[in-house]
Amino acid sequence: MSAGTVYGLGLGPGDPDLMTVRADRLLRKAEHVAYFRKAGRKGQARQIVDRMIPEDAVEYPMEYPVTTEIPFTDPAYNQMLAAFYEDCTAHLSDLAKGGRDVVVLCEGDPFFYGSFMHLYTRLKDDVPVEVVPAITGMSGAWTATGTPITWGDDVLTVLMGTLPEAELATRMAQTDALVVMKIGRNIDKVRRALRQAGRYNQAWLVEYASMPGQTVTRLAEASDKVTPYFSIIVVHGQGRRP
Amino acid sequence: MSAGTVYGLGLGPGDPDLMTVRADRLLRKAEHVAYFRKAGRKGQARQIVDRMIPEDAVEYPMEYPVTTEIPFTDPAYNQMLAAFYEDCTAHLSDLAKGGRDVVVLCEGDPFFYGSFMHLYTRLKDDVPVEVVPAITGMSGAWTATGTPITWGDDVLTVLMGTLPEAELATRMAQTDALVVMKIGRNIDKVRRALRQAGRYNQAWLVEYASMPGQTVTRLAEASDKVTPYFSIIVVHGQGRRP
Ligand SMILES: C[S@@+](CC[C@H](N)C(=O)[O-])C[C@H]1O[C@@H](n2cnc3c(N)ncnc32)[C@H](O)[C@@H]1O
Ligand SMILES: C[S@@+](CC[C@H](N)C(=O)[O-])C[C@H]1O[C@@H](n2cnc3c(N)ncnc32)[C@H](O)[C@@H]1O
Repeated sequence: MSAGTVYGLGLGPGDPDLMTVRADRLLRKAEHVAYFRKAGRKGQARQIVDRMIPEDAVEYPMEYPVTTEIPFTDPAYNQMLAAFYEDCTAHLSDLAKGGRDVVVLCEGDPFFYGSFMHLYTRLKDDVPVEVVPAITGMSGAWTATGTPITWGDDVLTVLMGTLPEAELATRMAQTDALVVMKIGRNIDKVRRALRQAGRYNQAWLVEYASMPGQTVTRLAEASDKVTPYFSIIVVHGQGRRP
Repeated sequence: MSAGTVYGLGLGPGDPDLMTVRADRLLRKAEHVAYFRKAGRKGQARQIVDRMIPEDAVEYPMEYPVTTEIPFTDPAYNQMLAAFYEDCTAHLSDLAKGGRDVVVLCEGDPFFYGSFMHLYTRLKDDVPVEVVPAITGMSGAWTATGTPITWGDDVLTVLMGTLPEAELATRMAQTDALVVMKIGRNIDKVRRALRQAGRYNQAWLVEYASMPGQTVTRLAEASDKVTPYFSIIVVHGQGRRP
């Protein structure tokens, strides 16, 4: 019997119409479907494919043991996560060695700040693994703003809201175009950094890009909003344009 | 009669299987198809959709009046390009006002350093325009390397090979993950900058990501190669990973 393949399947920003032809095909014939989620939630990735995967597909929800309850600087955080990834890996590896193909749902592009990467590095020398790239959340976000992100030789910097405020501010000041991801509870820090960098008034907040409930707002006009997990801040480049 | 729509249609990195479901659908029923190309060439975007668009689709190749013959610092360069974009815009606008939908083929994601952006800004207040996002060339490139591009709170910087050497070197040294595009005749400068930044040995060169003829090589082992237009340099981030 030959081994099955574990597919790291990029779903894109959320609109099923923005999935790749390959992802669409793999989903509609999937027999085993794995995905990460917070305990007690349905899971965003799972929700995106709701009416696409076959009714009788076997589902394997992988529930994070911790997310934001323990600070990620605590060594216990790393240990718990590592053990969790080992568990998930063992299960996926067993399925593949038993001859089954498994589709692992990934939000956006799997290799761009994705959770699947932690399984990928553990699986790739053990069983066949294939990564299906996808549109990133940030492409979904800048498309939603209706304005191109980069022109000519603009520099684009992508920052995580989890970085320290001073580093955020310095880097925000030095770039032409800017994307900030992982905002959530970091929103106040990100706002302060943008102000220090003199970029606050150029910033757009995009929530749920390409998903139901998408919003596009100038950050300065969204002052009291609590931003959800799926939000991205965009500052457009102003480079050369004939 | 109601106006037609101009679609800025992202094709992704090149593999038709990596197009979105929406792009695939729009292409297969397209009646008018426009695309940029160098004079005397078939055009890369056109080639990607070769067996997809209907045989009787009306094609509108938009041939660049200049590409690399005149330095882009010469004011004549900007004037020629501006006049060219005005011509293209007039034609697309006429078609749309005549009730026709037109698909404009875009390599990668239209809003990410794309040529379509020059038509988009001129058309968007005149006729209905819709942008269909797509996988960027860089996502295609890092997927091809088989290694994730960014982890944890890695900073990603995207640079154009057209920037001055000193600026390239400074920015290359200051980032975690790195993407360099528009390499072509800038390859020697880009190599020198990577060396100065101490990143040369971590750099990968990806040519024709996801297209026939794709290559993935350590830049240091590709020393004598002339890199084609479709090439990207990638340095992977090494961020936090439990
Ligand atoms: C763990 S990263 C995963 C990124 C994903 N692999 C990608 O390619 O976009 C999660 C972050 O992605 C961003 N994100 C992804 N998709 C999004 C969307 N559709 N709308 C807004 N933000 C999104 C948010 O900033 C979120 O905090
Ligand atoms: C004018 S920019 C257009 C970028 C495009 N809109 C995108 O989203 O990737 C052209 C540059 O894109 C890069 N590129 C785009 N697709 C590529 C591919 N499939 N393989 C390698 N490089 C690619 C090359 O660096 C090239 O110089």
